[in-house]
This record gives sequence, structure tokens and C-alpha cells, in this order.
Amino acid sequence: MKTRKTQPTLQDLADHLGASVHGDGRVRIKSIAPIQAAGEGDLTFVTGAKYLPAAAASPAAAVLIDQTPPVDIHKPLLIHPNPYACLARLIGYFHPPTQARPGIRRGAWVEKGARVHKSAVVYPGASVRAGAKIGARTVLHPGTYVGENSVLGEDCLLYPNVVVREDCVLGNRVILQPGVVIGSDGFGFAKEGEGYLKIPQVGNVVLEDDVEIGAGSAVDRAVLGTTKIGKGTKLDNLVHIGHNCVVGKHTVIAGQSGMAGSTQVGDHCAFGGQVGVAGHLKIGDHVTLATRAGVMENIPEAGVYWGAPSAPMKEEMKNVAAYRNLPSLVRRVRHLEKALKRLDPSFTKDDPEGGKP
Amino acid sequence: MKTRKTQPTLQDLADHLGASVHGDGRVRIKSIAPIQAAGEGDLTFVTGAKYLPAAAASPAAAVLIDQTPPVDIHKPLLIHPNPYACLARLIGYFHPPTQARPGIRRGAWVEKGARVHKSAVVYPGASVRAGAKIGARTVLHPGTYVGENSVLGEDCLLYPNVVVREDCVLGNRVILQPGVVIGSDGFGFAKEGEGYLKIPQVGNVVLEDDVEIGAGSAVDRAVLGTTKIGKGTKLDNLVHIGHNCVVGKHTVIAGQSGMAGSTQVGDHCAFGGQVGVAGHLKIGDHVTLATRAGVMENIPEAGVYWGAPSAPMKEEMKNVAAYRNLPSLVRRVRHLEKALKRLDPSFTKDDPEGGKP
Amino acid sequence: MKTRKTQPTLQDLADHLGASVHGDGRVRIKSIAPIQAAGEGDLTFVTGAKYLPAAAASPAAAVLIDQTPPVDIHKPLLIHPNPYACLARLIGYFHPPTQARPGIRRGAWVEKGARVHKSAVVYPGASVRAGAKIGARTVLHPGTYVGENSVLGEDCLLYPNVVVREDCVLGNRVILQPGVVIGSDGFGFAKEGEGYLKIPQVGNVVLEDDVEIGAGSAVDRAVLGTTKIGKGTKLDNLVHIGHNCVVGKHTVIAGQSGMAGSTQVGDHCAFGGQVGVAGHLKIGDHVTLATRAGVMENIPEAGVYWGAPSAPMKEEMKNVAAYRNLPSLVRRVRHLEKALKRLDPSFTKDDPEGGKP
Repeated sequence: MKTRKTQPTLQDLADHLGASVHGDGRVRIKSIAPIQAAGEGDLTFVTGAKYLPAAAASPAAAVLIDQTPPVDIHKPLLIHPNPYACLARLIGYFHPPTQARPGIRRGAWVEKGARVHKSAVVYPGASVRAGAKIGARTVLHPGTYVGENSVLGEDCLLYPNVVVREDCVLGNRVILQPGVVIGSDGFGFAKEGEGYLKIPQVGNVVLEDDVEIGAGSAVDRAVLGTTKIGKGTKLDNLVHIGHNCVVGKHTVIAGQSGMAGSTQVGDHCAFGGQVGVAGHLKIGDHVTLATRAGVMENIPEAGVYWGAPSAPMKEEMKNVAAYRNLPSLVRRVRHLEKALKRLDPSFTKDDPEGGKP
Repeated sequence: MKTRKTQPTLQDLADHLGASVHGDGRVRIKSIAPIQAAGEGDLTFVTGAKYLPAAAASPAAAVLIDQTPPVDIHKPLLIHPNPYACLARLIGYFHPPTQARPGIRRGAWVEKGARVHKSAVVYPGASVRAGAKIGARTVLHPGTYVGENSVLGEDCLLYPNVVVREDCVLGNRVILQPGVVIGSDGFGFAKEGEGYLKIPQVGNVVLEDDVEIGAGSAVDRAVLGTTKIGKGTKLDNLVHIGHNCVVGKHTVIAGQSGMAGSTQVGDHCAFGGQVGVAGHLKIGDHVTLATRAGVMENIPEAGVYWGAPSAPMKEEMKNVAAYRNLPSLVRRVRHLEKALKRLDPSFTKDDPEGGKP
Repeated sequence: MKTRKTQPTLQDLADHLGASVHGDGRVRIKSIAPIQAAGEGDLTFVTGAKYLPAAAASPAAAVLIDQTPPVDIHKPLLIHPNPYACLARLIGYFHPPTQARPGIRRGAWVEKGARVHKSAVVYPGASVRAGAKIGARTVLHPGTYVGENSVLGEDCLLYPNVVVREDCVLGNRVILQPGVVIGSDGFGFAKEGEGYLKIPQVGNVVLEDDVEIGAGSAVDRAVLGTTKIGKGTKLDNLVHIGHNCVVGKHTVIAGQSGMAGSTQVGDHCAFGGQVGVAGHLKIGDHVTLATRAGVMENIPEAGVYWGAPSAPMKEEMKNVAAYRNLPSLVRRVRHLEKALKRLDPSFTKDDPEGGKP
């Protein structure tokens, strides 16, 4: 981790971020750290007023917060309505990414007919096949593979052992964590006789600008046409995107979620972890799927959904609450049956096996 | 994507497929495309009569369909009882796979004592360890690894960064998508003292002919003996197969499914996505597990199963329907209790907490 | 698989293991094998007295068992209170691991400023970046990557295509199966405008001594600070560990389980397969999560938990039993309603839709 050599003042940071200072802006800031790790000279940050006493008690030199707190904590404050965005920028400020020397390293395999921008970096053990095009300042780490005719935009970052198969298109500033696979064959087979015949998968994958994909995730190429991940969308680790899916812009999908082929997901959606979406469905814009949701029907309406099969959140919360009380409900029904029997001796239970659970 | 240079007639295609033509077989076909993407000169296809009007309205030159439709759509038809299989063949016909020049490329690491057939292709960055054997026309892409004494048959295709560890056996025409791992150690540890002692995993993995495995999936080697995937079986992406599992022939397992160690799965099974099967179970032939099924008991009988713990499909559908109506059932029971109380003032509910949910 | 050349006597094995012999200790043992695979001269093993008849009927020369059985089976016995640990040692004894010749192979890329112990092995296609340190006898297989300033202890084993990104620390005897990713960026983004701003992930990952991680699993680096996996902990395949998680010592986590960011898991825990744990939770010591558990709240108490949302095992087993009987409960309620209507003709059901399921 590279760290900054010189120490800015709190006011320097405020200027950098478009934030304001409450208290002494001349204090020098060494780095940024969470409360429990903050040392003298560090800027720390709070995500809610309830953490302010802890921040006040820490040795931190100053505190990043979203608004002037009701009570003064005797430390200078850096105030900005979006402290998370500030945090993102400050971490980058104090730990600037290392810039690699441009060029194709000895030990990289760039085939004849591939075009690599002179400011790009291709490490040993990276493969760039014929017809591929690598944009300016894009970095291909060791063990990455860019297939025939795939086109990568500018400022992309492919971590070690990423695979982008042939004919795919990546926009600018696309980040692929280690082990990501783009353009693997979709799961398409035609039943014939007693076995299956492979349906060749000859489409591609398009990742628009600012897409980031987590370690070990795989996005299958389309059988014909394009599997697409929209601008600014982020996938976490071990996510599975089936062939011909289209995911919209600025959508976030957490770890180990998956969607089967030909499903469409809108813009500004958010999936929790281990969500599953069946194939050939349409999920609208601004749909949030809570962790482990299992979607088996279209969800055209914005909102929060949960459960498997998924339902609107409020509804599923009621289902879950009732489920967790089921044994008591069974007892109540048994009790009702006995009471009714006392009132009406001719009453017999409907289901001879019903009283056992 | 390689595309065909010459344009066959519809009759040429019918001859190629053993299909019949309805209408003018002399029309020239440029390529194959789904309805929404079909242009002039393309052959399109329908998976059901309800899509025929859309096919008729498209600019496509002809339509692939399973039988002569009741209404003429004024386009030549290509008729075959298995249009999916035709689709598979036609995609391959119009987009023939690129044939790589045979040979071991400079930058490939083939150890002394490995045998590579002269028609095989070993790309730079691929490793073939001592004692390994690579069959005719098999292709090892960059970053693939074939461990000591592993044997790969003919016409196998290992996409970039596939790992086949030592002592494994692949039949013919096995396809491993990028990042697949074959022969990783199984999860076997003996409790000893306060920790765990590793049980060395010295068995292997056998993949029979025509197996295909999706991106990022892993098949663990047996502790002793063999983990086996039967002929023609297909695994999707990010599937986990534990040590000593035996999966039968012509079985398909969709994305993110997994099975724990020593489980046996029969022939002609089909698993939906995100299915889980516990260890040491036996699943019979022709068992279908719907998406997200969680299997905790043997399933000897053919049929469709769903739910976690899984149950016969019809049963689980009733369970799910009742679950989604649970809050209403709770209300009905509460209402019954009140009604009974009115009939019999001495009635008291069984469960003092039961009325709260 | 390497196998032993010379055949020890049963007594030799007993001495090696600290076990005792019942019967003739002079019998020569060829290898170790499960009952169904055991041949003449093999030692087999049973995990319970019910398998003794099968062991007796097998051609095996001797049987490993935890105690003297009540009935003599006419074969020499190797007796040890922990036969699993013996099994682990015996497999290693009969199939000793191959020792690779130390040194950096031609085709490995070790940057200037990296320190590789002279007894370490670095295969072709492995990358060791500047500032990294590789301990004694550690093996880096082809396609592995060790990032800048990462430190690997002694006797570590990184199988092909493992990625350890920059600044991470591995203890001694850490085993990473093929395709494991250590130190990938966590899933951290700040909402800004209509999209997301990446929060740079500048922390690291620490894997303590004797950690083993299964194929394709990923452990994200901390945003700031450290993601930690404690001594002796084992993760299975395709496991996802979010940024800033802390997993304790001697914990085992089965395949396809995952935990979101900042969650803490105690010592001596055990997770079944496909378990999910939400972020920012605390799981205590000695907590067992049964397969598919979905944890959404802290679990401070040792015990066994199941279900999603998870509950104590006994409670969830009752819930599941009641769930599987839900349609019958619905019928019983409907029957009660009818009976009550007969007693009291003025009775009407509470919920006009409730009777339909």
C-alpha cells in the first residue's frame, strides 16, 4: 500500500473535496482511519451521530461528518453532506494507486495483429490475441487473457488471471478483479436422442463504462447477440450472469448472486447476496432484492422484494414472522379442535394425519 | 466470430439437417438470427406457434419450425421435428469454429516426459507436466495447467486458465470453460486436539466423453478412488462437486449448484440453478431438481422435486401456496378462537403467545 | 499419485501412529483402501461397528477401528481412539507427496526486489512482484501471482492460478487450491449522483498458519485494516469472504458459503454448504450453522442453528415439520370453520380470501 509523503492541512482536504471545516483548519492530517484504528494526526469518520462520542474519545486529529453536530466534540470537523463519497476520495488521496511503467513486458504474449496502445501495460504471462485492441492506460496483469477481436477501452484494469474471451467489448474504466471470466459459453444444449447437443455460443459480452466485477465472477457470452452489463454497474464476487442477460446501469449485485439466461434487470437495482433470478424474466428499474431472494416471476414495479419465491418485502416479512410461529399455530388449531369436540361431540377432525406434527 | 463466406440455399440447409422445405427452397440464406435481430436473407426460428406472426412480420427470408403451421405465413419454412438441434447445427454451420495451427507454441511449458499429440495445440503460458498425455486435436489455451500423469483424450478444449491437477482422466471432446478446476483437494479433515488434520486427497477425477463444465466450476478429486462425471453430462458456471461424487450420464446441472462429498447422481437428471445436495446421498435416474432445491435425503424415484428440504414438486407447490397465505391463516385461526369464545365463554387459547404474530 | 515402495507390517504402522494391534502384527500391509476397494494385503477402515461384517468379508489384510469390537472378525485389527486422524496419517504414509526440486524455474517472473527463499519452488508462469517475500519450502505453481510486498511463510502450497494480491500476509503451511483469490477488492462503493464512486480498498488479508482454502474461493482485502482468517481454519470451494471479515481459529466453512463485509466469526465454528451470513454480524465460538442457514442477526451463543432466517436447530426443525404439513393445517382450519358454522349459523370467516389455497 503506497502512502502519501506530505501531510495536508484539514483545510487542504476541505478544498480538495468541496467540504467545509468547523474548527481549526490548520491541523495537519497524516491519514484517514476508522475510529478504532485512528492514531494521532489521523482524520477519522462517523456514519452517524451515535458514534460521535467514540470519535471524540479517539486520538484522531479531526472527524469527517455529514453535518455540524448538535454538541461540540472539541475536535476540528470536516463537514460534507456525502461523507461516504469523501471517504472514497480521501482513501485515494492518502493511498494513491501505484502507476506502472507503460509498455509490453518481456514474457507477455501479444499476437501479431493485436493493437496495444503505447500507454497500456501488459505484464508477463498476459496474452493478447490477434485482432484484440487494448486502449490507453489499460493494465493487463499477469495471467490475463484477451481473446481474438476483443476491444478494451481506456483505463481498464484487469487483475491477474482474468479471462476475456473473443469478440467482447469493454468500455472505459472497467475493473475486473482476479479470476473474472467474461465471454464464457452460455449453458445452451439441445436435447437429441438420449443426450445433448451443444448449441454454439457465438454472441459476445459488452461491459459498458465503469463496470466493476468481483473475483471469480463469470458473465457468459450470448448464444447470438449480446450479454450486456450497463454503465456503472458493479458485481461482487462469484456472481453468475447467464447468456443473453441484460443488466442496466448503476445496478449493484452482491456476492454469489446469479441469474439464468435471457433475464433483463433494470437500472439502479440492488441485489443482496446469494440472490437468484430465473431465466427469461424482466426486473424493472429501482428494484431491490434482499439477500437470498429467489425470483421466479417478472418484477415490473420498483420496490423492495424478499423471499423465495420472492414477494414484496412487507408481505414476506409477515410470512416469515408467521412461519417462525408455525408450531404455535399448529397447537392453537389442535386446541380449537378439542374445544369444538367438547361443544359438539359429533365433531371429528378433517385430516386423520393432521394432528401429528 | 468467424462467419461463413458463401450463402447456401434453404434446400442446402435442409439437406444438411435432414429437414424438409415448405415453400421455395432456392432462397439464399445469409445467416441464422432470432426474430428481433433477423435481417433480410436471414433464417429465423420459432419455439412455438405463438411466435409465428412475429416471424412472419420480420424481414427474415425463411423460418425454422417443428411442423407445418396451420396458417401459411408467406415465407419459406424449414421443418424439422427437433428445431433446437437444428439451431445448434445451423449456428455451427454459419459460424464455424476457428481451427488453430497444431503444435506447441513458444512460451508453452511442456515438461520432459509429457506426451503431446502432434495435432494438439498448446498455447504460450500453458503447462503440461511430466507424465501427462494430451490427445489428438486437443487445445490447451494460455494459462491452462495439466498436472503430472493426467490424461486428456482427443478433441478436448481447455479454455484459458483451466487447471487439471495430477492423475486425472478426461475422455474425448471434453470442454472446460475458463477458470474451471479439476482435481482440487476435497474438503477432508480429521478432528484432532483442538484443530484439524488434513486427510491427503490422493484419488482423482474422471470426466467421461462429451462432458462440458462451465466457467469457474470445481470438481474435487477423491480422497481415495475417483470422483466421476459421466458421459455427456454438462455443468454450468460456478458449480461445486465434492470429493468422491459420482454423477451419471447426460445429466445437466445449472449454475451455482453444488453437491457435498460422496453423493451419487443418476443419469438423465436435471438440476436448476443454486441447487444444493448434501453428502452421501443417492439421487436416482431422471430426477429433476427445480431451482434452489435443497436435498437432504435420498431420492430414488424419478420425478420433479423442489424446496428445501426438497419434496415432490406438487407437494412443495402446495406448501409454497399455503406459506404465502400464512398471515391469512393466522387471522382465520384468531377469528375462530374469538367465535369459539363467544359460543363457550370458558374457552381460552392454548398458547398465550400464539395470538401475537 | 506416488505410492510407497516397501511394505510395512501392521505393527510398524501401529508404532508409527501410537496405535495398538489386536491379532497378528506381522502381517504386511500394501496400502490403505475403503472396504469396497480393498484388495489382498490392504488395510481397510470402518467408521462404525455396523460396517464390521463388510470389512470382515472383504479381502483386506487388516482393519483400522476405534476400539476392540465385541465380536472377533478373524482379521488383525489396528486400534486407535481417533481412526480418522490415523486415516489421514496412513494416506500420507502410503502416498507421500512428491518433493519438487527447489529453485526458481526458467519461465517464472520474479521481479527485482522480491525475496524468494532458496528452498522455495517457483514454477514457470508464476509471478512474484517487487517487495514480496516467499518463505522456505513454499511452492508457487504455474500461473500463481504474488503481489507487491505480500509475505508468504514457510511450507505454503499455492496450486496453479492462485492469486495473492499486494500487501497480504500468509503464515506457515497455508494451502491454497487452484484458482483461489486472496486480496481482491471488497465491494465498497459510495452512492454519488446517480451512480457509484469506488471506495479504494487499501487494507489487506492475513491468513494465519495452517489455513487451507478451496478451489475458486475469494477473500476480499479490507477497505482499511485487515480481513483475517484465523489459524487452522479451512474454507471449502467457492466460498466468498467479504472485506474486513474476521474468521476465528479452527473453523470450517463448507462449499459455496459466503459472508458479507465486516462480519466476525468465532473459533471452532462449522458452516455447512451454501450458508450465508449478512454483514456486520458477530457469530460466537462453537457455533454450527447447518447447510443453507441464512444468518441475519448476531449469534453470540454456541449451538447449532438452521434455517433462513436462522434459528436454533430444534426450533427450526419444528418449523420445517410444521411447514411440510401446512396444506393439512389449512384443511383443518377450513374444517373447523365449517363445523363452527354448523354450531353457530351466524359465523362467517374472517378472511374472504383465506379459504382458497
